[in-house]
Amino acid sequence: MAPYHPPTGGRAGKLRLDFNENTVGCSPKVIEFLKQQINAPALTIYPEYEAARNDLAQFFGVAENEMALTNGTDEAIQVLVNTYVDDGQEVLILKPSYAMYRFYSELAGAEVKEIAYRRPDLSFPLDELLEAITPGTRAVMIANPNNPTGTGTGIAGIRRILERADSAAVLIDEAYFEFCGVTALPLLGEYPNLFVSRTFSKVYGMAAMRLGCLFSQTANVAHLRKAQSPYSVNTLAALAARAAIRDTAYVERYVADVLAARDAIAAGLDRLGLKHFPSQANFVLFEAGERAIPIRDELRRRGVLVRDRSYEIDGCVRVTAGTPEQAERFLKELESIL
Amino acid sequence: MAPYHPPTGGRAGKLRLDFNENTVGCSPKVIEFLKQQINAPALTIYPEYEAARNDLAQFFGVAENEMALTNGTDEAIQVLVNTYVDDGQEVLILKPSYAMYRFYSELAGAEVKEIAYRRPDLSFPLDELLEAITPGTRAVMIANPNNPTGTGTGIAGIRRILERADSAAVLIDEAYFEFCGVTALPLLGEYPNLFVSRTFSKVYGMAAMRLGCLFSQTANVAHLRKAQSPYSVNTLAALAARAAIRDTAYVERYVADVLAARDAIAAGLDRLGLKHFPSQANFVLFEAGERAIPIRDELRRRGVLVRDRSYEIDGCVRVTAGTPEQAERFLKELESIL
Repeated sequence: MAPYHPPTGGRAGKLRLDFNENTVGCSPKVIEFLKQQINAPALTIYPEYEAARNDLAQFFGVAENEMALTNGTDEAIQVLVNTYVDDGQEVLILKPSYAMYRFYSELAGAEVKEIAYRRPDLSFPLDELLEAITPGTRAVMIANPNNPTGTGTGIAGIRRILERADSAAVLIDEAYFEFCGVTALPLLGEYPNLFVSRTFSKVYGMAAMRLGCLFSQTANVAHLRKAQSPYSVNTLAALAARAAIRDTAYVERYVADVLAARDAIAAGLDRLGLKHFPSQANFVLFEAGERAIPIRDELRRRGVLVRDRSYEIDGCVRVTAGTPEQAERFLKELESIL
Repeated sequence: MAPYHPPTGGRAGKLRLDFNENTVGCSPKVIEFLKQQINAPALTIYPEYEAARNDLAQFFGVAENEMALTNGTDEAIQVLVNTYVDDGQEVLILKPSYAMYRFYSELAGAEVKEIAYRRPDLSFPLDELLEAITPGTRAVMIANPNNPTGTGTGIAGIRRILERADSAAVLIDEAYFEFCGVTALPLLGEYPNLFVSRTFSKVYGMAAMRLGCLFSQTANVAHLRKAQSPYSVNTLAALAARAAIRDTAYVERYVADVLAARDAIAAGLDRLGLKHFPSQANFVLFEAGERAIPIRDELRRRGVLVRDRSYEIDGCVRVTAGTPEQAERFLKELESIL
């Protein structure tokens, strides 16, 4: 099994358009609240999550026992796999997709079956996914919208997956929810096989803090929490999340910026004659052909970080959409390189 | 499988002698450093551990690639089990001991075999443990000194375990190292089956931050890190640890306090005619017989938290040793209850 080693070193001081983070940082109110709350007892006592659980459940519109706090979405994936998938059982994922679905499935000894994106527009392979689901499928894990393709499926598609995979745990990873507005959360009561994850690493600008939320029906959440360390989430992460959800205006303004930047990037790539794919997330995947890696490297030399994805989609590079000004800088550098 | 739900709610404002935390809090320099370092980029960027890994490896006297940072000792236990133990394979642990050895072993489908403390003085059951080791044993996990017994084994005992269990991964969990001074770390080069864990949750007063270190030979650490999320540790935890190890004077003073408090508790229990066990850690286990739970409850009513362990050792209660003043308060309340 290969380790997952994203190239995260030496990013300070550069324009970080490589990891789909929030490119302007978390709300200043999060910083203020943390500075206020940090004192010796806060660091010294084993985490207590009650206040964070109450606040977050209310914010997401679920009951407190329909939610588990997780150490990033990574732990959500791991506890789901550890709870529902045994050695040798089948897990369905998309290809390409977020690397950790395969990682934790393999770690648990599962049989991973990948549904490849084959359409020229990289649209979501719903029919192929539905066809691949069998009574032996124990888990289906998709990011919606997906990373790095940027494409997703709607509620009707999610319902079809849930209905067809009725003996599997179906994870809809909504890491990029805020940029598309499609969520399976309202379906929670209807489908006992539905699991939804959210993260504070993207729009909320708290990737360093490692906080995710995993939602499902009460009985499932009780099971999931049995597979978790009782202290997997850092106290300061739980505190920061409580402050973050109180500043919704900040997040709304940032989402508006991202959508404008995404449009600007698409228009700019059109001008440069580079094919790109319609995105519902805070990034754009575009085709640079054989120049994908040289372009990535030259952009880095100029202080702009983007992510090469040509190892999984021929000639493709992924660029994060932040603010319109950042999009402009990226396009200017790209144009000058081309 | 039963979830592990320690009773951690509602501890604020009470004298916390129930979880073997640092009872006076982490070094003020940790707080100062965190307040200085907390800003939007620090929270927004995915964790980078290089600086923390360098500082910590140097502090512990190991090479950087002989160490993995973990999300508390819990993640150290989990990655060790996930890396070395397959479904149905045997894991040896002590009984009673820290609950998470059994937790993660069962989660991985391992066969857990427990070596019970049977001696009247609760001394470490070394011979029984050695006898139980077979070529089929895949992992041996012990806390040294052990919790809640407070007793441990010396380097000679650890060597015998490592030599006998030469086809198993042997974890020596040194969560309480600073209170006894016995460490297996210098044996790292000699035994390829040795794994040592340390934590920042006890003497360093950072239980809320969730940071542990797992040590082994380079090839093992490379394997272990393959079973970890690349971002399992919160950035602020890594920052806090760097500050904590710079203030060794603070930790030394606190250890001196704990040792004095431990002696005071032992002497006080002697005066009250309560049997207790020799401890090498920052807690004392004593026998309260049938009054164990009522005493725990009455102490709580008076604002002093201790931990009932009578469900695993007949009539026993565990009290954390903090400062001599805290020990005095505990003894005064206990005497008044008796």
